[in-house]
Amino acid sequence: MRAVDLIRKKRDCGELSRDEIGFLVSGYTRGEIPDYQVAAWLMAVWIRGLNRAEIAALTEVMLHSGEVLSHSEIPGTKVDKHSTGGVGDKTSLILAPIVAAGGLTVPMISGRGLGHTGGTLDKLEAIPGFKVNLSLAEFRKVLGECGMGLIGQTSEIAPADKKIYALRDVTSTVENVGLICASIMSKKLAEGIDALVLDVKTGSGAFMKKEEDSVRLAEVMVETGKRMGKKVVALITDMNQPLGRMAGHSHEVLESVEVLKGRGPEDLRDLSLELSAWMFFLGERTNSIDEGRRLAEEMVTTGQALEKFKQGIRLQGGDERVVDEPKRLPQARFCAEVLSPAAGYLDITNCEQLGTALAMLGGGREKKEDKIDHAVGLEFHKRIGDRIEKNEKLVTIHYNSDAKLAEAKSLISNSYVVNESVPQEKRPLVRRIIGG
Amino acid sequence: MRAVDLIRKKRDCGELSRDEIGFLVSGYTRGEIPDYQVAAWLMAVWIRGLNRAEIAALTEVMLHSGEVLSHSEIPGTKVDKHSTGGVGDKTSLILAPIVAAGGLTVPMISGRGLGHTGGTLDKLEAIPGFKVNLSLAEFRKVLGECGMGLIGQTSEIAPADKKIYALRDVTSTVENVGLICASIMSKKLAEGIDALVLDVKTGSGAFMKKEEDSVRLAEVMVETGKRMGKKVVALITDMNQPLGRMAGHSHEVLESVEVLKGRGPEDLRDLSLELSAWMFFLGERTNSIDEGRRLAEEMVTTGQALEKFKQGIRLQGGDERVVDEPKRLPQARFCAEVLSPAAGYLDITNCEQLGTALAMLGGGREKKEDKIDHAVGLEFHKRIGDRIEKNEKLVTIHYNSDAKLAEAKSLISNSYVVNESVPQEKRPLVRRIIGG
Repeated sequence: MRAVDLIRKKRDCGELSRDEIGFLVSGYTRGEIPDYQVAAWLMAVWIRGLNRAEIAALTEVMLHSGEVLSHSEIPGTKVDKHSTGGVGDKTSLILAPIVAAGGLTVPMISGRGLGHTGGTLDKLEAIPGFKVNLSLAEFRKVLGECGMGLIGQTSEIAPADKKIYALRDVTSTVENVGLICASIMSKKLAEGIDALVLDVKTGSGAFMKKEEDSVRLAEVMVETGKRMGKKVVALITDMNQPLGRMAGHSHEVLESVEVLKGRGPEDLRDLSLELSAWMFFLGERTNSIDEGRRLAEEMVTTGQALEKFKQGIRLQGGDERVVDEPKRLPQARFCAEVLSPAAGYLDITNCEQLGTALAMLGGGREKKEDKIDHAVGLEFHKRIGDRIEKNEKLVTIHYNSDAKLAEAKSLISNSYVVNESVPQEKRPLVRRIIGG
Repeated sequence: MRAVDLIRKKRDCGELSRDEIGFLVSGYTRGEIPDYQVAAWLMAVWIRGLNRAEIAALTEVMLHSGEVLSHSEIPGTKVDKHSTGGVGDKTSLILAPIVAAGGLTVPMISGRGLGHTGGTLDKLEAIPGFKVNLSLAEFRKVLGECGMGLIGQTSEIAPADKKIYALRDVTSTVENVGLICASIMSKKLAEGIDALVLDVKTGSGAFMKKEEDSVRLAEVMVETGKRMGKKVVALITDMNQPLGRMAGHSHEVLESVEVLKGRGPEDLRDLSLELSAWMFFLGERTNSIDEGRRLAEEMVTTGQALEKFKQGIRLQGGDERVVDEPKRLPQARFCAEVLSPAAGYLDITNCEQLGTALAMLGGGREKKEDKIDHAVGLEFHKRIGDRIEKNEKLVTIHYNSDAKLAEAKSLISNSYVVNESVPQEKRPLVRRIIGG
């Protein structure tokens, strides 16, 4: 078998066998097939696509490129959630303690932010002392003790994905359903979970802007997970505007704590409870989604979820006092306001730009090596459809350096539009459920 | 400007500007843009295509990536010919001396064989002592002295093409009209020529199997050359069977000498004279093609072309005695025959396989690093449409090692078919002329 022939086969719209995909992926992971051949193959895949069998084969080969965890020493069901990412999406910080408090185990291996979206690991690192780089032994210990653990991808987990993802990032081959599915599912299935809830974002702030693309990705991921013997469901959720009122690392920790305290913005609270409910249901902790929702609410109202969050922070070396003393989180020195240019009804035309503006101010990465300023944040005062007056505050920018402030401001104001007429009917946050 | 954005643009069917193409190609040539980004871009280009403006820009950028020769110190017009390659195509060895003897200058920078096609440089190296690696100063001296010079691509000529071609070869991005055109034209225009005759092969032994593809490549190359102020014409010529009766390096030198002596097979002689005629016409040595053809014939019948060939060999360090003493060329030790399995009328179903069989016996390369056995050769006794009897000789194989003899024999016999009925009407060798 030769890499050049497999590249040609995909280029010419052929279907690759499991062995052929294995040859490419294993050869690349072992350093026997060079970057440039895999780059050409990835572009052929991006354009020609992978069918369901190819996606399943790619996922399985990537999953078995490294260690597949098993937590058999910990009793009960292991569940996780994965989101395709958006602006202000901090539900992992909320649902992990809710679900762990409710009695399931959540072994969550997360990623870092890139481009306009944030990453769970980065958000956790806003908490002073919080360590995301636990060894697998430490991870198991934390999991066994409190039922939740949040770490980064280690070199043992799906090393093929790590290498391929880095290559996709620099060769414009990221946004492809098959490649995204294999990347996500190989990592998630390596966590040693029994069930997985997927939050597939759709809209102007999501990687997939069109709902049909999000649905297709969701269907493929659900099918791939089921082929591999896992319970999987996907919620297609709205990302035409930020989730919650805050974006930025310290700010999102703060807002997550608010929700765990039974407060916080309605959309974030609703989605966190909904995702938790599905995790309880798939994890066979409850017999229905409704019962799952009630259990999730109970974990919040009784304060058990908040206690779990504090325990989790403590076990991973973080300062749990941030929960009650938000000033212990990194604070930005300055703030600036973006005001509404007119009176009317608000709409957001480009939610992605809000994330880009945040990244530009230091609150995100353009390249993997970039450092993040955890203190930088955006506070969104209005939501789509809200009535707004001229010069009323749209967004408060919390920042440390004004090097790119003007550019960020302009990106933010260009993301909004104020219409004269009353907005169209409100679209539900959860659009569809796939595989449920 | 970022490579990743330009890859994306082409991936999404966008048109790249001259500056964008220049950024990629220059960056790659200087080692600032990595292999893997160019590999992904090449695959996007292969699938999405380049339009005429992009092809012209790519050609020009690649041309100016290195030295562009000028032979202003040598009076008169400089012309060259380029063939897209086939089996037994040795016209360069014949027309260069004819055209130089006729008074024009032929600065010919040629390539090596790869896959099923031979390369002019390799054929010349069958002549003991012949040096193709002249410096540019030596090249100019030879050119000035005898009007023809045949060398390989130096590191000064179109370095971008050298690097990109090597990458295309290992990423299955070779057969694309725009990329082929830019590769050929950038090298040829760097020779410092005023006019160029292209021999674009079509048929089962050519890179372009379908006539429409050959025509499209020819049109693109002619247009690109004209955009750059050169006189260019392309002849679409048949490659459904080997050109002449011989393939293999020593054998092709021998057959070329035969034609220069006024003998040799009719098809090879006709095409060599036709291409020479166009070179004389485009080089303004004659006022018509007919006059060019007569001049070419005169150069052969008077022996001037043969003398020129000997002078050329001598000036490049070769043993000119091969012209009259063919035994001085490398000789194979053994020969074997492929016989006709039946009586009837001959057809060739896969001319490429004949070239592959030759390569397999050591007379060609599978990889760039492979050594060539110049003595190995195939002698074709019959042409398409010829009447043949059962067990009559089809092909004589001249070989040194029988390691792959059985495989080569089988490839050869599978390339022929014997039909009962009289063949269809003979197709002309020169199918069409583009840009004439």
